[in-house]
Amino acid sequence: MLLGENEIGHLALGAAVFGGGGGGDPHIGEIMARLAVRRYGPVELVDLESLDDGELIVPCAMVGAPTVMVEKFPAGDEGGRIIAAIEKAMGRKAAALTSAELGGLNGVLPIAWAAHAGIPVVDCDLMARAFPELQMTTASLAGIPISPVAVTDERTNTIVFETIDSPWAETLVRSTVGAFGGSASMGIYPMTVAQARIGAISGSLSRAIEVGRVMSEVSADPVDALCEQLDGYRLISGKVVDVERRSDGGFARGSAVVDGTGRDTGRLVRFEFQNENLAALEDGKVVASVPDIITAVDVHTGHPITTENLRYGQRVSVMAMPCDPFWRSPEALAIVGPRVFGYEFDYETVESIHG
Amino acid sequence: MLLGENEIGHLALGAAVFGGGGGGDPHIGEIMARLAVRRYGPVELVDLESLDDGELIVPCAMVGAPTVMVEKFPAGDEGGRIIAAIEKAMGRKAAALTSAELGGLNGVLPIAWAAHAGIPVVDCDLMARAFPELQMTTASLAGIPISPVAVTDERTNTIVFETIDSPWAETLVRSTVGAFGGSASMGIYPMTVAQARIGAISGSLSRAIEVGRVMSEVSADPVDALCEQLDGYRLISGKVVDVERRSDGGFARGSAVVDGTGRDTGRLVRFEFQNENLAALEDGKVVASVPDIITAVDVHTGHPITTENLRYGQRVSVMAMPCDPFWRSPEALAIVGPRVFGYEFDYETVESIHG
Repeated sequence: MLLGENEIGHLALGAAVFGGGGGGDPHIGEIMARLAVRRYGPVELVDLESLDDGELIVPCAMVGAPTVMVEKFPAGDEGGRIIAAIEKAMGRKAAALTSAELGGLNGVLPIAWAAHAGIPVVDCDLMARAFPELQMTTASLAGIPISPVAVTDERTNTIVFETIDSPWAETLVRSTVGAFGGSASMGIYPMTVAQARIGAISGSLSRAIEVGRVMSEVSADPVDALCEQLDGYRLISGKVVDVERRSDGGFARGSAVVDGTGRDTGRLVRFEFQNENLAALEDGKVVASVPDIITAVDVHTGHPITTENLRYGQRVSVMAMPCDPFWRSPEALAIVGPRVFGYEFDYETVESIHG
Repeated sequence: MLLGENEIGHLALGAAVFGGGGGGDPHIGEIMARLAVRRYGPVELVDLESLDDGELIVPCAMVGAPTVMVEKFPAGDEGGRIIAAIEKAMGRKAAALTSAELGGLNGVLPIAWAAHAGIPVVDCDLMARAFPELQMTTASLAGIPISPVAVTDERTNTIVFETIDSPWAETLVRSTVGAFGGSASMGIYPMTVAQARIGAISGSLSRAIEVGRVMSEVSADPVDALCEQLDGYRLISGKVVDVERRSDGGFARGSAVVDGTGRDTGRLVRFEFQNENLAALEDGKVVASVPDIITAVDVHTGHPITTENLRYGQRVSVMAMPCDPFWRSPEALAIVGPRVFGYEFDYETVESIHG
C-alpha cells in the first residue's frame, strides 16, 4: 500500500483510537506526515510477510510527556539520524523503519520520518496501542534486545545507548528526555524481520488505517461504529466535569470524571491515566483497565481525545475495547497489567466485565 | 617512562595537590592502578611530542559527585569499553588514552584503565587541575569538539553522545550520571595528536609524579616544600572548625572554615567548593580563587584532603598556587573564572594578592 495524505488522515484517526488517550496527539504527526509526503512523495507500507528474514528494521517513536510534545515539535529529519545512528552502532544497513507504538502520535509520525529518509515503513508495531514505558513492548516479551537505542532531538544532538537490559534503557532514556526538555525521538529494539515475526504485531498500521476510514464515514459520534468494528463497549456518554493533571517524572499523570447525560444521566465514570488511560471506574468498581484500551471520543468532532487535551465541559463518549491478545498472557500482564501501574486489582478482560 | 607502583603512588599524591580538593579522592584510583599494573604490568607514559600528528588519543575520566565516587567504584575495565565505543563512533583506532583531568582521582584512574586495556597513556591532560564541568577544558577553549563522548558504568551500560556543543554534552552527560546513581566513567574530546599539541597541557602527569615524589620525601607538613616547588603560598594552618556540605545537581557543594593555630592564631579562613575549592576568604576579602588552585593538606598524614573528606577537627595547612598560565586569558576566565561559579568578583592572580 502507498501512504498518501488520504491514508495519513485515516491513520491519524485510527492511531488515536488505539492510543487510549496516550501516545501524544496524532494531529502533530499527521501534519508533519502530510507535509513530508507532499514534498517527498507517498511512503510505501510493506507487509512484514513480504520481507526477507535477515533484513533489519528499526521501530521508531517520540518519547516523553505528551503535554510537552504538543508544544515542542520534532524537526522532521529525525528518522534519517536515528537510522544512521542505529546502522553505525550495528554495523549494517536498515531496510525500513516502523512505528514502535501504534497508539497516538507515534502511529503517524514515523511516516513523516520515512518520507524524509526515503525508506519504506513496515506494517507492524510493538504495542498495537500505547504504553508509557520502553520495556512495555511485544519485542521485550519476545526477548529481543532493546539496544542499541538511538535518541535524537530537534537540535540534532544524537545519543546511542547500549544498555544491559530494557529497564536500564527506560531509566537512561527517560533521564535524557528530561534533559532535552521533556521529549525526544528514538529508534529502539532494532530487529531482523525474523525477530519481528515473533516480537512485533503484524498488520497494526493497516488496521488503524481501516478504523480511521470507517470513522471518517460517520458524521457524528463514531463510538457505536467503533464498538462494532473493534468488539468494544461504550462505557458512558456525558460531560467532562473534572480533570486533574500533572507532568511528573516525564509523564502526564491524572484523572478525569465524566458525568453521564441522556440515557447515562445520574452515572459518573472516572478514568485515570499515565500518558494513556489506565483504568475506568464506576461506583468504586473497575469497568475497564489496562492492557485493554480505554478511549474518550469528542462527540462533536468525532475525534478521540488524548489525555493532555481533556478539558472541563467536553462532551464525550468513552469506550473500552479488547487489547491485542498478545497482552493477555500472564507474562505480558506481569509487565503491563494493572499492578504494574500501582493498582491493587487483577486484570479482568473488558468482555468478561461487560459481556 | 614506565608507570609502576612507585610512580602511581607519587602520581596519586601529586594529583591530589593539583586537584584543589576536587576530582575525587585519588586513593581509589591509586588502589585500582596498583592492582592493574600488578596484574597487567607497568603502563607506558609517552610524551605527546613523540607521537605522530595523525594518531587519535582519548582523554578519560570519571564524572559525577566525588561524594558518590568514594562509595561506588568503577569495575576497572571501563577504559577498554570507552575506547571501543569511541573507535566505533569515529570509525578509526585510538593509539592511547590520557587523563582528561589531572587533579584528583582522574589523574590516576586512567592508568588502571590503560593497564587493563593494554595501551599507553599520553603525558598530558585537559586542565592541569580539576574542574567540575565538562566544558571547562583546554580542549574546549582550543575549539576541539567534545563529541563523541562515551559514557559507561560499572554494569557495562555504554552510551555514546554526539552533541552539537559542549554545554549540551554537559547537560546530557550530567543527567545520565544522575540516572546511573551519581557517577560514571567517560571518554571525551577524542582528538588527534596534532589537536592535542594545541588543546591539551603537555607534561602534566610527569609533573604531578615529580610533585608526589618530593612530598613523599617530606616527613611532616609538606606545604612549605610544595610552595617552593610550585610557587605557592601558605594561606593558613589550623583546625577545621566548620564544614557545610551537600550533594546538589550531581556536585558536592559546600564550604569549610579553618581556625588558625600557632603563628596563625586568631585568624579564620573560609574556603568554598563545588567539587573543587573555588575561593578562599579572610575577613571578607578574597585571598585566592579559581582558576588558581587551593589545596588543604592534612598536617599529620601530609596528604591533600579532598572536599568530600573534610571533617571537623582536622589539622590542616591550606595553600594556594598559580594555575597553568593557559587559564589566565580573558577567554579562559570566561569559562572558568570566579563569575562562572556565581561569584561577584573578578579573578586576581594568587601572586598579585600575596606577592
